[in-house]
Amino acid sequence: MRDVEFPEVPRPDEQARRQAVARQESLTKPVGSLGRLEELGVWIAACQGTCPTRPFARPRLVVFAADHGVAANGVSAYPPEVTAQMVTNLLTGGAAANVAAANAGVGVRVADIAVDADTPGPIAGHKVRRGSGVIGREDALTEAEVVAAVQAGRTIADEEVDGGADLLVVGDMGIANTTVAATLAAALTGIEPVAAVGRGSGVDDRGWMRKTTSIRDALRRGRPVAHDPLNLLRVSGGADVAALTGFLAQAAVRRTPVVLDGLLTGVAALLAEDLAPGAARWWVAGHRSAEPAHDAVLRQLGKEPLVDLGLRLGEGTGALAALPLLTLAGRALGEMATYEEAGVSGPVIAPPPLPGAVRD
Amino acid sequence: MRDVEFPEVPRPDEQARRQAVARQESLTKPVGSLGRLEELGVWIAACQGTCPTRPFARPRLVVFAADHGVAANGVSAYPPEVTAQMVTNLLTGGAAANVAAANAGVGVRVADIAVDADTPGPIAGHKVRRGSGVIGREDALTEAEVVAAVQAGRTIADEEVDGGADLLVVGDMGIANTTVAATLAAALTGIEPVAAVGRGSGVDDRGWMRKTTSIRDALRRGRPVAHDPLNLLRVSGGADVAALTGFLAQAAVRRTPVVLDGLLTGVAALLAEDLAPGAARWWVAGHRSAEPAHDAVLRQLGKEPLVDLGLRLGEGTGALAALPLLTLAGRALGEMATYEEAGVSGPVIAPPPLPGAVRD
Repeated sequence: MRDVEFPEVPRPDEQARRQAVARQESLTKPVGSLGRLEELGVWIAACQGTCPTRPFARPRLVVFAADHGVAANGVSAYPPEVTAQMVTNLLTGGAAANVAAANAGVGVRVADIAVDADTPGPIAGHKVRRGSGVIGREDALTEAEVVAAVQAGRTIADEEVDGGADLLVVGDMGIANTTVAATLAAALTGIEPVAAVGRGSGVDDRGWMRKTTSIRDALRRGRPVAHDPLNLLRVSGGADVAALTGFLAQAAVRRTPVVLDGLLTGVAALLAEDLAPGAARWWVAGHRSAEPAHDAVLRQLGKEPLVDLGLRLGEGTGALAALPLLTLAGRALGEMATYEEAGVSGPVIAPPPLPGAVRD
Repeated sequence: MRDVEFPEVPRPDEQARRQAVARQESLTKPVGSLGRLEELGVWIAACQGTCPTRPFARPRLVVFAADHGVAANGVSAYPPEVTAQMVTNLLTGGAAANVAAANAGVGVRVADIAVDADTPGPIAGHKVRRGSGVIGREDALTEAEVVAAVQAGRTIADEEVDGGADLLVVGDMGIANTTVAATLAAALTGIEPVAAVGRGSGVDDRGWMRKTTSIRDALRRGRPVAHDPLNLLRVSGGADVAALTGFLAQAAVRRTPVVLDGLLTGVAALLAEDLAPGAARWWVAGHRSAEPAHDAVLRQLGKEPLVDLGLRLGEGTGALAALPLLTLAGRALGEMATYEEAGVSGPVIAPPPLPGAVRD
């Protein structure tokens, strides 16, 4: 599948990174005392290529919506029509992601990649197909569909960046999509189905057994192609994961930082880093979800998430919950006073002599 | 010390709590899928006595500033005059807490409780004394100073609540205050000095040894009174911790939720819960700091922090970093659509039969 080659991914700006590290040392706080927030501030500066950082002018959430054939196996607590219903809910502002986006000052876009229903024109412009094959017994997609879906994601990333987006947040919506994501996570990280399966939207014990069996069956077909991202997407993936993969790689090509969400976006990130090495430098992990496979994916990505709140909703909600930490990290680097500006004494270079008070 | 008795602490509203739990189940998300955010939303509703919750109208940070005699032992990387300099920095908006407060929409108040310098009138209105005794060899405060400091904290809480504050965030500023806080943490939780001592503002190895010795010496004097909060504050505390203790207890008496910050505020919380049982129901732990004793304090408080980002700055920065999660939790409960409003199908009650696709 030659059509989906990516150009070399640029690195975040090294000079801005160094300036940011130096600036952190000049601000009125002990060096390192803002912990992860200092690293984040440095990362934002490197991504933006400027220090101090700029406020994010147009942060944008893109929710990739799709149905999945494996839903027929009864792997979800919800019926498949909920995917389309939730797309409508996202469009009318009633979903958790809408509230979380408003709370973080982020604009929301929904992209129907493979919803098994008709959706309004503006969101269906990149639709690849309806649903996917039942991955335990057949391929999820054709080769042409994989290429189309990856290209759809690339195009969406281009549209967003060309529209002024300077921070991207990714999310997913689709009944049964954690079954697909857990299968891909197991194929990519080597964990067993029983370690990868989670409660998803809240399946009961029998549903959990059906889900585990579905993942095991799908993995039997997917493992032989686990080393080949596009073939793995074809055999065990879905158009949403493929589109996310293209989106994440292209965001990096376009030098635009991304906040990852949960398991499905994490799996797409692993695939995108394989297709476009170095892309991961442009991503930060927003949260660790309650889905057990997410932890293995994060470890393989080498990403420590910003928050860990037991979320398992998708839609980008975990990434959006973490977003104010990025804003804070950038602002701290830019807005705090330096020691010199504030007239605050720096740390004592030569430590004082051992005092009498601490003799034994 | 009879003067510091607190009235019975009211409970958060049980009816609003129950309404919030029920509302969480009606919203367009799998029940429990927002994890900690769902619990937080329920807690906010119970504290406000209303469901859905109201947006916080006037969240306020109070930074309790004080110097500590034990600074003479060389336990900090910074000279003691930095306390007063940082108070000025906080007043002119250049400190990390100012940026974090602006990022979270929180107003900032600095209260000079025992800074060893003259500070502007408006912030020195509740000053108890300058500094404190060197706790390894003498009492930190007199009995009258303890009473005055606890009362100062109560009055500040009353002023804030009477001024319309509906969410309080606590912070601390003071060179050597982690030495005091670690001593109190060790006395209250039973951990050893070497397990309680942290790098604070970033002491070097020799400073760390001086700090450990200082905590050990102070603990020798403090442990015998560890069961008695006011005497422990007198022997091993400081006016800032005492004021925070009074503040936290009084906030609960006034039915006002509080976001705790790091080690020093956590120690004050343990003391306040002892003086005013049930007050802890009104507090949430904002973050887990990098100070090792904080974890033991959080466990004893029974509080799981919202974020864990390796912060060790104080000033309320960890609590402020977590604040947007509270806002989000409250908004999600109030603003998300219900299944009925959005026309979204609920979970399937009877799971479908085991499908053929998952046969082995």
